[in-house]
Order: sequence, then structure tokens, then C-alpha cells
Amino acid sequence: MGKNEYKAEWEELAQVKKELAERDWFMGTSGNLAIRVSSSPASFLVTASGKDKRKQTDEDFLLVDENGEAMEETNLRPSAETLLHSRVFRNSQAGCSLHVHTVPNNVVSELYGDRGEITFRNQELIKAFDKWEEDASLIIPIIHNHAHIPRLTEEFSVYATEEKGAVLIRNHGITVWGRNAFEAKKLLEACEFLFQYHISLLSLKNISQTI
Amino acid sequence: MGKNEYKAEWEELAQVKKELAERDWFMGTSGNLAIRVSSSPASFLVTASGKDKRKQTDEDFLLVDENGEAMEETNLRPSAETLLHSRVFRNSQAGCSLHVHTVPNNVVSELYGDRGEITFRNQELIKAFDKWEEDASLIIPIIHNHAHIPRLTEEFSVYATEEKGAVLIRNHGITVWGRNAFEAKKLLEACEFLFQYHISLLSLKNISQTI
Amino acid sequence: MGKNEYKAEWEELAQVKKELAERDWFMGTSGNLAIRVSSSPASFLVTASGKDKRKQTDEDFLLVDENGEAMEETNLRPSAETLLHSRVFRNSQAGCSLHVHTVPNNVVSELYGDRGEITFRNQELIKAFDKWEEDASLIIPIIHNHAHIPRLTEEFSVYATEEKGAVLIRNHGITVWGRNAFEAKKLLEACEFLFQYHISLLSLKNISQTI
Amino acid sequence: MGKNEYKAEWEELAQVKKELAERDWFMGTSGNLAIRVSSSPASFLVTASGKDKRKQTDEDFLLVDENGEAMEETNLRPSAETLLHSRVFRNSQAGCSLHVHTVPNNVVSELYGDRGEITFRNQELIKAFDKWEEDASLIIPIIHNHAHIPRLTEEFSVYATEEKGAVLIRNHGITVWGRNAFEAKKLLEACEFLFQYHISLLSLKNISQTI
Repeated sequence: MGKNEYKAEWEELAQVKKELAERDWFMGTSGNLAIRVSSSPASFLVTASGKDKRKQTDEDFLLVDENGEAMEETNLRPSAETLLHSRVFRNSQAGCSLHVHTVPNNVVSELYGDRGEITFRNQELIKAFDKWEEDASLIIPIIHNHAHIPRLTEEFSVYATEEKGAVLIRNHGITVWGRNAFEAKKLLEACEFLFQYHISLLSLKNISQTI
Repeated sequence: MGKNEYKAEWEELAQVKKELAERDWFMGTSGNLAIRVSSSPASFLVTASGKDKRKQTDEDFLLVDENGEAMEETNLRPSAETLLHSRVFRNSQAGCSLHVHTVPNNVVSELYGDRGEITFRNQELIKAFDKWEEDASLIIPIIHNHAHIPRLTEEFSVYATEEKGAVLIRNHGITVWGRNAFEAKKLLEACEFLFQYHISLLSLKNISQTI
Repeated sequence: MGKNEYKAEWEELAQVKKELAERDWFMGTSGNLAIRVSSSPASFLVTASGKDKRKQTDEDFLLVDENGEAMEETNLRPSAETLLHSRVFRNSQAGCSLHVHTVPNNVVSELYGDRGEITFRNQELIKAFDKWEEDASLIIPIIHNHAHIPRLTEEFSVYATEEKGAVLIRNHGITVWGRNAFEAKKLLEACEFLFQYHISLLSLKNISQTI
Repeated sequence: MGKNEYKAEWEELAQVKKELAERDWFMGTSGNLAIRVSSSPASFLVTASGKDKRKQTDEDFLLVDENGEAMEETNLRPSAETLLHSRVFRNSQAGCSLHVHTVPNNVVSELYGDRGEITFRNQELIKAFDKWEEDASLIIPIIHNHAHIPRLTEEFSVYATEEKGAVLIRNHGITVWGRNAFEAKKLLEACEFLFQYHISLLSLKNISQTI
């Protein structure tokens, strides 16, 4: 399978990478991205480890199989959290999976880490997750940041069963996926907006009782 | 009516969209924009639903009549809140109407939602709304975010009677309009500045009593 | 005096305008900029009123005399606060004067408005104002925002006597000036950094007593 | 030694400067950067004093020896803190050293200045400093901002012994170094992320005890 076989997916993922880099969502070379190339068995492009994601190069991504192993001869290593993306593609029909660290998603993951989840209600942007009723709620699970990646993957896997979703890893960013790159990015943006909103409102909580 | 008939309006709205996208004011594909094409009956260009507003394409906008119905054959759907823009153009001489979600406008809408309005005084930027006296005040109404769009439109319509104005929808962004795209954008920026300022000052409120 | 006579000054001011616009420091068409063209009597280029400062056009600036009156036939109006710049150029050897609204400078002007000044100590960036000793301090005066511009100018004028300086107007931005555009911009950046720093530290004040 | 001899290093440092400038990390002409050219005795390129770091010119850097003295005839002066970089290159094998002022790094340096250090735990991004264990911690020392540069250098030098590291100077930014420009920038970004995260979490500290 040569580069021509997955040129469209490469370019789509490169575009997502560029947009997220413009927001500075890859601080300290953190974050990794994946896009599905074939269905069953799953293969996907994933970011190579240790690259500066503000740059666009021919070595930004590599093709891996559903176990996260490189499918072509290469000296690139897949990103450390490739197994998480792998589970998304094995467990569901999802087409794209994004893992990013932002200050707000880390802060929320720490604030609500002991509870294991955060719930959003009465916020227009939860509609991005098909929550249309006026009293609907969006629950995002928060899992422990196991240093042992297979164990982290196991716990993550429980929540990665539908074709779209989001999971926070405590002090280790968020993984968001959707049917395609457009949807995955849309859901990620919706989550980040909700986190920023929540933090801003929370910081005014005591004050707001007196205004 | 072909695209040549509203080329100028299209380009003006595209320019506004580009500037607001640079500020990241369309997170999660939220937000929608409209610009008047004809007066009476009103017709206007409005953003197509579900597009990535950071990109510029030939399918970004479509022409609709004063009821928000497409006037040309198209597979595009008008943005969900097109009816709000429609009321702005029917009720007043306004030329441009902008609806955007930002963290500060959502936070302010929630903090003051029970009161139904927020008032700004002693701030230079309220002059954008022609408030020139030293003790003048700017009042921005906040309405409930009805999931039923016609009911939302009805409540919104009460406040959309002048050729310039702004209405917050609780946890659902702000709609701002003016005589033309330049003024609508200027008023939107003034509102966002005031919201950011208010939130920052509020967060220091308890502290400021002791400095 | 034709445009060729002040081409260098025009381009220098245009460059400053572009940089400040990239930081979004002209929200709601606020802010205005001035650069000296001749010494005695003073003449200077100043931003035209009501323009979108994110754009670069041939009508961005106009030449005015030391009373702030247009020196060439034009339908442009000088910015409302031209008189403040005028005093800077009459009272001192300053070459460039910048007036901008940011959320932090407005917040600081309100928090310390009753005191009439804010003092910075133990901060490396006060060296921008030639404060080199370890216990040196920088005092920035804060004046009342008189709606009557001549009265505002009179109060401002008291503090605009040296070739570099900065004055906050309560809820009406800051005016900063220096020997040339480079220095004025440097001082403005130093002030904004100090304001951002101060607000961030203040918001952690109660907490910091317990860490 | 002519410019051709260190063209690669010049371009690498110019690229880092450009990226940091895009984040606005050189407010008020603060900050300075250095990259090693030769090993032993050390020589390195360092930013010239008093330049606008948002611009790219042929006078952005100059070559200095391990005492921080210019090695070529030039009217440029090395940045004031060149001695700090000099110690990094003399004491270790580091290839690149970056000194920047940001609001978060100054705030953290002040909050924890009396303690002389800040410790980070349970944060994925400390892995940038090769802290892989689940209970690992990263300690960043904070030194007093001596106005006398040789004394500042002496205190700094104690902590600049390894090929990668970071030292906060109280209210005077951070100095971060690594084996090469890529690593130095990665470590700087990781530090800034951790500072932003820490400040945001701290501001919610009292509140988080009640949620």
C-alpha cells in the first residue's frame, strides 16, 4: 500500500493538524491524531512520535494496522497513545480520532477527576453531540491516567463504543472521535468551548450569588 | 436572481465571516451570519447549516426570502436560527445581522439570565451604540433559550425593532445587527469587549474592596 | 505638503497599526494612533475616525496641525482624541503617540481609578521606562474620563510633559508615547504586560496567602 | 568566521524566534535567545539587544564567545542576559537556550518566589523532562532577580549543569535549555503549559472544595 492509496486521508488529517496547531493545541509536542484508511480489518494513519506539529512534512503520519503496528517499512514510531485510537477504530465505525492537551481540558479533568465524569446541561453547544431536548445533558467520562498504556487503553475502551464520543484522561488531555475528520474536529471544539465556559463560570461562582 | 446579483453582499459577508473565524468565534460550527440583499420584501444571504466557517467556499451562503425559505434551487439548508435574522430584516432597516457564540457572551447570559438583562455604564465603548452622555447606560436584554425556534423567534422579535441592536440568548450566544456589515461587526466587537471587561472586573470584585 | 512628504512616517504608523490590529487591540473601532511629521510648529499624521483598523487603506491617516486641524483638503475626520496626541507633540519632543483600549488596561483603570494611579515595583519590565534600580518603581497616572474632550485634554496635559510616558483614562484605554514608533510600541507592550500580570496575580491574592 | 559558517544555526534560531514571536512572548522587546555554534571553547549566536523580535533582519543575532563577547566587528550589543546563556553552554552540552517573559511564568515566579521553587506532579507534560513514573515530580528552581547581572549569573549557574533544564527568575521570566533548538522549544512550551494550568487550577481552588 503506497502513499497514493491514502492521499485523501493524509491531506484531510494534515488540514486538521494545521488548524489545531494554529490554536496552539500541541504544546510541548503533546497530542496525536488518527484517521481511518480501511474498515475491516482497520488500518489508519497516525501522527509520528516526537514531531513538531506546527510544521507540515512527509513524515508527519505513518500507516498502522488495528494493533497500532506500522504497516510499511519506516523509521518513524507511532505516537505513544496509538492504542487508544486503535480501540476507537476497532470498537466503532468512527473515521477520525483526535487526542489533544489544552489547559482547560486538563483543569476540568483534575477538578472532576474524583467523580469520574463531568455533566453539561442547558448549553446550546451540547447539540453537537445530538442532544436536542431542552433538558438534555452531555456526560463526559474522566479516567485515571495510568502510566501503563495497555491498562489505560483497557479503561478507555469501555467508553469507546459508539461512532462519536469523548473521554477525558486525568491531566492527560482529551480523546474525541467522530464519523469523519469534520465531525471529530467539531466535537473537539464543542468540548473545548464547554470546558472554557465552565471554568469561567465557576471562577465567578461565589460572586454570582451576590450580584 | 443569479449569484452576480448579490456578489457585493456575498463578498462583504465572506469578509466578516473570515474575520470572526480568525478570532475563533465559530467553535463547533456554531454561529451564523446574514446580510440583506433586497428591501421590501426582504431577501438576504444567510450561512448554510453545518459548514466549517474557517473555510471559504461557494456554498457558504444561500439566498432566502423574508420567511427564511431558500429562493434558489439548492441542497443547502439555511442555518437553524435564520428566523431570527429574518425578523431583524422585517422589523427594521438593518442591513446585516450576526449571531455568534463566545465564552464571555455565554457566561454573561447565564450570570444575568434570571434578571433578563445586563446594564453597562461608565464605559467608553458603549458609545458604539450612540450612548454619548457621561451617565448614559447600555442595556442588553437576555432571553430564554427556547428549544422551539418559532417561540424563540417570537420572544426575540420584541427586541429587534431598531436598525441597530443586540440580544443575548441564555447560553446560546448573541445576535447583533446594524445598518451594514461594518456597523454590525463594530457593535459585536463592542459587546464582546464589554463582556470580557465585565467578567474580568467581576472576578476581582471581592479583592478590589481591599486594595 | 503632499503624501510623498510624509511617506516614511505613514509607513511606520501603518506598520504599528497592523501589529496592534493583529493583537485585536482596536475592538469596536476603538483606539487611535499618531506620528509626528514636523517639529515646530508640530504637525502629525493621525488615524481617521470610524475606520476598520484591521484594514490598510489610503484613508487610514490624515495630516493635522498642532491644534489637531486637518492641513489638507479631505473628507476624513481626525479621531476624536486627536487633541490628546496634539498635547503630547506640543509639550514634548515625542515622535509617536498611541491610544488603545484593551480589557486589562480598562480593568486596571477602574480598579485603581479612585486612587488616581497605579504603581509597579519589582518587575523586570519597568526597565522599559528606564527604571533600572532594584527598588525602582513605575507610576502610571489614571485620570477621569471627561466626556468633554477639551477638559479631558487639559487634565491629560499635566502628565504629558516628557518625551516618553503613559496615562490611563478611566474605562477609556491608555495613551502611551515615546521618541519614535518603536519606543512608543515597546512602552505600550510593557504596560499591557504589567497590567495582565497585575490582574492575574491579584486574582490569586487570597489564595496565595495560603499556599 | 563568516556568516556562512553558522548559517544553519542562524536559520534554526530565526525559526524559533518567529514561532515565539507569533505567541507574543517578547512583549516590550523582552526575551533573548541563543544557539551554540562551536563546542569547546564555546561560541554561540545570541539575539542583539533592543530589537523588535517580531521582525526578521540580518542584525537579529551576533556571534559571541563563551564569555559573551562579540567575536566579529559589529555595532550590535548582545542581549543583557547573554551571560546566563554563556553559563549554560560552558557548564553543559546544551545546544540551545531560550529566555522569555510571559505573564504566567512571571506570576508563578512571584507566587512561589519565597519558597525558591515550584513542584509539578501528576501532569502528563512533565514527561517532556523525562519524568515517566506515575509519581514522578518536576522541580523548577526560582532565583532572586539580582539587578547585578554577574551576581544573577552566579546564582543561575548553580542550576545550569545538565544538558536540559529550566530556571525561573523572580518577575524576570524563565530560561530553558536543551540539546538543540527543537528540545529547548519543546521544554519551554511544556513549562508554559504547566504554568498556565497551575494558575487556572489555583484560581478555582477554594471553589473546587465545594463542587
